[in-house]
Amino acid sequence: MDVKILEIKQSVFANNDRQADALREELKKQGVYLLNVMSSPGAGKTTTLVKTIEAWKDEIKIAVMEADIDSDVDARTISQTGVKVIQLHTGGMCHLDASMTKQGLDGLGMEDVQLVFLENVGNLVCPAEFDTGAIKSIAILSVPEGDDKPLKYPLMFQVCDVVLINKTDVLPSFDFDMERCVRHIKMRNPKAEIFPICAKSGEGIDAWLAWLRREVNAWKRHA
Amino acid sequence: MDVKILEIKQSVFANNDRQADALREELKKQGVYLLNVMSSPGAGKTTTLVKTIEAWKDEIKIAVMEADIDSDVDARTISQTGVKVIQLHTGGMCHLDASMTKQGLDGLGMEDVQLVFLENVGNLVCPAEFDTGAIKSIAILSVPEGDDKPLKYPLMFQVCDVVLINKTDVLPSFDFDMERCVRHIKMRNPKAEIFPICAKSGEGIDAWLAWLRREVNAWKRHA
Repeated sequence: MDVKILEIKQSVFANNDRQADALREELKKQGVYLLNVMSSPGAGKTTTLVKTIEAWKDEIKIAVMEADIDSDVDARTISQTGVKVIQLHTGGMCHLDASMTKQGLDGLGMEDVQLVFLENVGNLVCPAEFDTGAIKSIAILSVPEGDDKPLKYPLMFQVCDVVLINKTDVLPSFDFDMERCVRHIKMRNPKAEIFPICAKSGEGIDAWLAWLRREVNAWKRHA
Repeated sequence: MDVKILEIKQSVFANNDRQADALREELKKQGVYLLNVMSSPGAGKTTTLVKTIEAWKDEIKIAVMEADIDSDVDARTISQTGVKVIQLHTGGMCHLDASMTKQGLDGLGMEDVQLVFLENVGNLVCPAEFDTGAIKSIAILSVPEGDDKPLKYPLMFQVCDVVLINKTDVLPSFDFDMERCVRHIKMRNPKAEIFPICAKSGEGIDAWLAWLRREVNAWKRHA
């Protein structure tokens, strides 16, 4: 399957927040739920999306936008699930803003789509600073990165509605304290929903998917 | 041991490359070797520095600058080795430039120091775009992040002289192909020196330290 690649350009508009709000209005009109997925490089964004898509794709029309500086490795992986996917090349940019997300959605095409996952650039810093226009944002923190990450990258954990703690299968190999990690996340964001998962095996995906189902259904009722 | 924390400010000068060259001239005059250490969040920069410092601190005067958006977790860890350490708070900034590095060195004090490690902000994107003024730069890529990272974050692997592949102890738990990883790094940077290490156990640190010794000694002879 050939992967569509789009070279996106940085916004010339200063007011990213205004553009993000406008994009959310458009998503509401089109009935498309957009979820922004952020993490460090290699924390498991693509694997988590594959497992989530496989579990839900028969009931809802899903599409994925894969942002990367270069390569189309992730878009090729996602395309194997059979859902619509587009690769966004950021041309060296370290994050996505609302204008870049809009370009991606226009390139993807929103007809026949109900849920779009935006896999942001792997980076715990810059993506947190830009509202993409998504309805909600999640962060994936993986066990090998360590339980101190919410202390060092505060904004990422403040702006996310959900934190998935991934790679729980390797907990015995790492000095990672789940309770301490949850405490660090709650220090940054008391309202954050936290789900430990192992995207590779699928463990914990059900609880996360239940949150996402409730969230998308509640949004549809109010859209 | 109380950790000194410095709030650093972004450079007002556009010409970062000029400032970086000026900083290298100053380092040469002072006889101080500066090494820039970059990686994703949680790849093991601090643990690698601790092991490197422990193996070499009796022969050379080492100091460390720890850059983070927030917290002083890493500076506290480094301070346990007994070497001089300063925590640089970037105030949300995703990278260090030459001016910020200069502020750090001034805050640290270069008298009685022969080798300074600069632990950059955990980020595979932005730090690669800014010459810090360091003599050489290294990247640490950890096994759990995956062997495809040089494909997705090309600039980081282009600008580094050395790549340490860390956390080799967990190779059996991850789908990480060392040969493929080396091939991906060499695709970006044929001259890169690559050392597999396990900073936790100290395995492989000797080969990396041998490179660093040769490098610092050669630089001193020409400084």
